[in-house]
Amino acid sequence: MTQTTNPARKVIVEDDVSGFHAAFPLLLQSAEAQVLGFSAISGNVWRDQSLAYVRRMLEITGHPEIPALPGSVFPLLNSEAATERWEALYGKLVWKGAWSRGWVEETLQSDPRYHAHDVVVDLPIGNPTVVPASEEHAALTMLRLTREHPGEVSIIATGPLTTLALAQSLDPGFASRVKELVYMGGSLNPHRRRDSTSAHQFAREFANSPRREFNIRWDPEAASIVMRSPWPRVTMIPVDPSTATELTAELLARMTAAGTPLCRALASRHPGFPLWDEIATATWLRPDLITESDELFIDVNTEFGPGYGDILSWAPGYEPGLGETRQTVVRAIDVPAFEDFLVELLNAPQPPAVGLPVPAAGG
Amino acid sequence: MTQTTNPARKVIVEDDVSGFHAAFPLLLQSAEAQVLGFSAISGNVWRDQSLAYVRRMLEITGHPEIPALPGSVFPLLNSEAATERWEALYGKLVWKGAWSRGWVEETLQSDPRYHAHDVVVDLPIGNPTVVPASEEHAALTMLRLTREHPGEVSIIATGPLTTLALAQSLDPGFASRVKELVYMGGSLNPHRRRDSTSAHQFAREFANSPRREFNIRWDPEAASIVMRSPWPRVTMIPVDPSTATELTAELLARMTAAGTPLCRALASRHPGFPLWDEIATATWLRPDLITESDELFIDVNTEFGPGYGDILSWAPGYEPGLGETRQTVVRAIDVPAFEDFLVELLNAPQPPAVGLPVPAAGG
Repeated sequence: MTQTTNPARKVIVEDDVSGFHAAFPLLLQSAEAQVLGFSAISGNVWRDQSLAYVRRMLEITGHPEIPALPGSVFPLLNSEAATERWEALYGKLVWKGAWSRGWVEETLQSDPRYHAHDVVVDLPIGNPTVVPASEEHAALTMLRLTREHPGEVSIIATGPLTTLALAQSLDPGFASRVKELVYMGGSLNPHRRRDSTSAHQFAREFANSPRREFNIRWDPEAASIVMRSPWPRVTMIPVDPSTATELTAELLARMTAAGTPLCRALASRHPGFPLWDEIATATWLRPDLITESDELFIDVNTEFGPGYGDILSWAPGYEPGLGETRQTVVRAIDVPAFEDFLVELLNAPQPPAVGLPVPAAGG
Repeated sequence: MTQTTNPARKVIVEDDVSGFHAAFPLLLQSAEAQVLGFSAISGNVWRDQSLAYVRRMLEITGHPEIPALPGSVFPLLNSEAATERWEALYGKLVWKGAWSRGWVEETLQSDPRYHAHDVVVDLPIGNPTVVPASEEHAALTMLRLTREHPGEVSIIATGPLTTLALAQSLDPGFASRVKELVYMGGSLNPHRRRDSTSAHQFAREFANSPRREFNIRWDPEAASIVMRSPWPRVTMIPVDPSTATELTAELLARMTAAGTPLCRALASRHPGFPLWDEIATATWLRPDLITESDELFIDVNTEFGPGYGDILSWAPGYEPGLGETRQTVVRAIDVPAFEDFLVELLNAPQPPAVGLPVPAAGG
């Protein structure tokens, strides 16, 4: 049997999806990736809300055959009540995801919708009607698929790391069966590098807490379990490279020019956000987009003090040697090439959408 | 009685002096400052060693009338043994001051001289023979002088903050009697901004610990006491502005051109260091040198965990309100103007030196 020189690379993706973004569709539009499952996890919104987005995204992009996996609902140990006590001692958090009730300062972002974890509010891109949710917890699916394809499955996690920590805790052989882990999370030494109002507002999240990032802060214990697991290879996409990116109205127009269902759904996004998750999937597909990276040992502060959930990093030789992982930490990417890559893949032909028609942009 | 429009400003200075630097002489050479006392504290070296430098500095600069004050020997709670256990759990510190036995990585800086706290090794600029050490602890001197001149005495602290914490703990009215506190310490979001080997090596201290800085890390509890004291005004000089400065061989030559005893002693410094303490005294004399600053609430992490001694900061509205101080945080200075100011004051005529002759440069 002959093989192409570049057989499709198997991947499972997990995110706390809170809107139709470009990071997942990018993988679906690439001939390089074979997506074995999209998993939803709590974080920016609750798991059930996120899962509705994943199911609807699979309908719009024409991939009803790919499983929509339910990841974890709650962090391992952290909680809304603990977070309120923490804020009383250590100061207000800028963003608390599903626990957010509002903003401390005026912000361009819309007000968060605070509701119970098992409530699902209507999606602006239409609710899913065709693609079901898988009945198996994503952690079990990950265990099963990595047993079926040991050493072949990459994992890209762009939300909190609870599901991965559960998989590893259920089966200590899990991490070493994965091909590589790529995660968007954590923060090293980010600086604001754009001058837009959005960029100034997003800088609030790191200006006074350079080591704090929401995905990790939502479930610090899970993140530390993941950081101490024996993955063959780990790539960290921290906040740092994202400060050079922004979903401007112009870029969004370029990304959605083809007017396919995918493009129309994507056009419903509010401009202004850094392209956090898109960097993770794009650099997994195209590592040449990475222009600057370091090799550092990484762990997470799990003490319930001012630094709860902060990234800990060490240059080799300074690390304590308590299981923390040596990771490739992405510091900067080629932003124009990255944008061109998004524009090219997202405007490419897509399989027929299923389910409800996609509302026009802004709907 | 007529007064000049700019009567001399009273100031007490404290530092963990580990060599002849320009920060103290700058004040002595300025007509604006009336120095009421120079205090020595442990940190980079032990207090007694530091006090020998202060006494000798007063001889070389021709100011034997100014008291050389003994500040604190040990941190309040932190210790060498605790620091060793901390490193085993949380990774090696780049610099431990008087507790340093060597460097983790090769470095241009000379090897630290590890010795007991009551040992004083010979000074390369000659040992003090004329100026005595005061018999009163610096904390008591500060209490006395601020009672004699309430609201008139500034304090510039460029070392650990143990002495100030003791003064405030002895007398809760102390901080409010001080005119203003300026301290060099802490770190917010520093980035390397010069390309020299020295700059790359000093970046090791913050690249993987942006909130850690030695002065604060030596005695975190004292620093938090100081951060929570009711100073009428506080200016923080963190590491951030210092990364744009460097004592290059060229700058050192300009600063010492006049060949006075002060210049000859200063010429014995090794080039390469950021001008941390010089920024503190220079901007106190010339606030117009500050080009960028923020108003932030500041405290120090006193939990004995990975973030022990890290700076905590909050934009107004996010702070917990547990006594943390609102401070002016200096982010950047006008480096050419700062260098010109150093060159001008340090080369100005000085009073006759006393004590031993100053060895030639490099001696």
